[in-house]
Amino acid sequence: MKPSIPKGTRDFSPAEMAKRNYIFDTIRSVFYTFGFQPIETPAMENLSTLMGKYGEEGDKLLFKVLNSGNFLEKIDASQTLTPNLSPLTLNHLAAQLCEKGLRYDLTVPFARYVVMHRDEITLPFKRFQMQPVWRADRPQRGRYREFYQCDADIVGTDSLLCEVDLVQMIDTVFRALGIRVAIHINNRKILSGIAEVIGQADKLIDITVAIDKLDKIGLENVNAELAEKGLPADAIAKLQPIILLSGTDDEKLATLRTLLAASETGMKGIEETEFILRTARQTLALTPNPSPLTQELVLDLTLARGLNYYTGAIFEVKALDAEMGSISGGGRYDNLTGIFGLPGVSGVGISFGADRIYDVLTQLDLFPAAATRGTRVLFVNFGDAEAAYCLPLLSRLRAAGHAAELYPDAAKMKKQMAYANALGIPYVVIVGQDEMSTDRLSVKDMQTGQQSSLTIDELIAML
Amino acid sequence: MKPSIPKGTRDFSPAEMAKRNYIFDTIRSVFYTFGFQPIETPAMENLSTLMGKYGEEGDKLLFKVLNSGNFLEKIDASQTLTPNLSPLTLNHLAAQLCEKGLRYDLTVPFARYVVMHRDEITLPFKRFQMQPVWRADRPQRGRYREFYQCDADIVGTDSLLCEVDLVQMIDTVFRALGIRVAIHINNRKILSGIAEVIGQADKLIDITVAIDKLDKIGLENVNAELAEKGLPADAIAKLQPIILLSGTDDEKLATLRTLLAASETGMKGIEETEFILRTARQTLALTPNPSPLTQELVLDLTLARGLNYYTGAIFEVKALDAEMGSISGGGRYDNLTGIFGLPGVSGVGISFGADRIYDVLTQLDLFPAAATRGTRVLFVNFGDAEAAYCLPLLSRLRAAGHAAELYPDAAKMKKQMAYANALGIPYVVIVGQDEMSTDRLSVKDMQTGQQSSLTIDELIAML
Repeated sequence: MKPSIPKGTRDFSPAEMAKRNYIFDTIRSVFYTFGFQPIETPAMENLSTLMGKYGEEGDKLLFKVLNSGNFLEKIDASQTLTPNLSPLTLNHLAAQLCEKGLRYDLTVPFARYVVMHRDEITLPFKRFQMQPVWRADRPQRGRYREFYQCDADIVGTDSLLCEVDLVQMIDTVFRALGIRVAIHINNRKILSGIAEVIGQADKLIDITVAIDKLDKIGLENVNAELAEKGLPADAIAKLQPIILLSGTDDEKLATLRTLLAASETGMKGIEETEFILRTARQTLALTPNPSPLTQELVLDLTLARGLNYYTGAIFEVKALDAEMGSISGGGRYDNLTGIFGLPGVSGVGISFGADRIYDVLTQLDLFPAAATRGTRVLFVNFGDAEAAYCLPLLSRLRAAGHAAELYPDAAKMKKQMAYANALGIPYVVIVGQDEMSTDRLSVKDMQTGQQSSLTIDELIAML
Repeated sequence: MKPSIPKGTRDFSPAEMAKRNYIFDTIRSVFYTFGFQPIETPAMENLSTLMGKYGEEGDKLLFKVLNSGNFLEKIDASQTLTPNLSPLTLNHLAAQLCEKGLRYDLTVPFARYVVMHRDEITLPFKRFQMQPVWRADRPQRGRYREFYQCDADIVGTDSLLCEVDLVQMIDTVFRALGIRVAIHINNRKILSGIAEVIGQADKLIDITVAIDKLDKIGLENVNAELAEKGLPADAIAKLQPIILLSGTDDEKLATLRTLLAASETGMKGIEETEFILRTARQTLALTPNPSPLTQELVLDLTLARGLNYYTGAIFEVKALDAEMGSISGGGRYDNLTGIFGLPGVSGVGISFGADRIYDVLTQLDLFPAAATRGTRVLFVNFGDAEAAYCLPLLSRLRAAGHAAELYPDAAKMKKQMAYANALGIPYVVIVGQDEMSTDRLSVKDMQTGQQSSLTIDELIAML
């Protein structure tokens, strides 16, 4: 039997873990300094919590967990199982077989959390969450069925200072990682205004979904898709100057102010965007920058983001020096907890895509060498007596906070050295009869090959 | 709709997360200093990897994931679904509906990992893994359907120095946490020897499972269970002196040496145990102890541990000052990877039970106050102009590594102060017209109520 793992899932080796932890630790530190606090939610949620929150496509991509025990207990009796039931009957049957599903993102569980724990929470509530999510997507390069999301959200206030805070936080994270990025910003209210002034308010989702694809499929195909969705030619024509708007951000906003004058929502979106851009730019300009990276903050009207619960500002982050989709994204949603019976709680959040950030850091060779926390000192094992002598010394090193180990077997010297090399252990300590009688250790620097005679205290001082 | 979460699962609030992270961080740090490296494996494993590894009972407790898309695709067509199928037919049907399951522990996925990645791994391989596992157990106080395991294993060597290393590591973890513990140690070979000399070698599992319950159900019931399992009265009689063995560890081992003289396996187990106890005690005696806790290391012949893959030393850790089952356990298994086609890889490991450790620390009030990484400084928000003035100061604090935030709304002072109190924020910065004109901040110490006038540099220096 040759073991394997489910497609779209991954094992992470110590070397990969070191790099992943570097990313998670960096993001987590920034989350903390910005005043966000961690929560965790269960991997399994009730399907009633998850279903209907991610659109029809999302429902299909949920992993469902078979009920424990007699999973046929709740079925309509006497159905005949055949492999060609209609999708509707299949869904119906799945709902009888499964009550639970694996979480699909961290936002819906967070909304559920806020509603369930409303009495314990002080608003505004700034939480972060770093946990895996699962999607039954077709696996492909860079797309996995299990992957981590790193989310930070502020709920319970509609202050635009939160958006500014998130822009700064994005800037801080990517500066810390050494990745130059462009932070794209748009506002759903502007998009709504556009739909309104072209007389297609009910087509907002279709319009944003189509505009979202501009980069990928080009203007012609976007227009074709809009037509296919039922937009009349004159509406599509009216949309063109907006989709292709150019100039500085201020120029764009001025033009929009004219185009959307008739839409209250649109004008509100413009005002919000102006505040966020202005305040974020002022603050970033006055922020002490540990690294000289030039980040960009850009108004991007083609930015729509797929999920339809956003209602205000939306963000997306792109690496400037690597070919990669968005490596971070988010936005404001005015009524996320409404679906769970708690209306009027506005929130805004950002999600960092750990896997894509990993790929960018790899492409740009930006992982620091010191990201690993591997063993620093290996004691060679020459046999029982020598090992017994080494054990308390090993404890001394560890008590001083240094990762150290004794090779467990009295194997050939060559094998033990090969082990040190394979693990990249920088110092090897050799203790034989001479060393035991003088209480001095022979310490080999594996980088230079140099060997020195040190007491345990000298070794600790040197590390 | 009132949202809920599946029974046996939990949400963790920021306050709980801070405590849990204190436990995880402590254990992780010790793992690193002992030379263990992290890996992670997917939440979902193929059911073929999991089934049959945890006994019949374990198979029932696996959470199975419904196949995506048409989950009836692989069923034997034309079965009629009724809620009263036989357990066997139910299992058969589940195997057609589900290919994947949630991991039940970290040991089997680790064995699978070692076999799959045998060509990348340098043996001996010291890995740790801290991830949730899922079991469809009946939820009850202290028993959850989702819980974290913190495992460290060494595979690829049968050196008893590994057992000694693990004993030391257990000692180090619980000293760091401030919990006094007794480390119980036994050896499956001794238990095998016992089964052998009473002529019941094939009843080893029954004997160990029964002996394991001595503490819980008492000698009489253990004997009754042994009889029920088919042990003849004379075998049970022979077993009594062994179950009730007393004296010092050395005395016990001396008695066992006589009783098990006829069993080669038993004698090997005694020899191993003597080496581990002697070496661990010597090393612990010479180890610098940061805390003056008295830990105990005890030979415990009633210790058997439920899982049947152990073949040598077995460990269990009990808190001395709290009523609680074992808070950590492990042992040696000689052939875990054999089930995946790679025989001859011996391993030994230990698993720390985070939930029970959490409960012990709570009972004994041992969580340090400084375990949280909450916001240190809150800027009061008096309006747009004041907020704009505060934002760059906020950045200064954060750049210096201090968690700080600006209240997002210009709410009433009382509300903002209540927020600081609820979150336990120690310093509140008040910036009005006066402060803006003098570039000095009014800083309120929330503990003492004292207010001082500081520059931003003075504030940073004070934190």
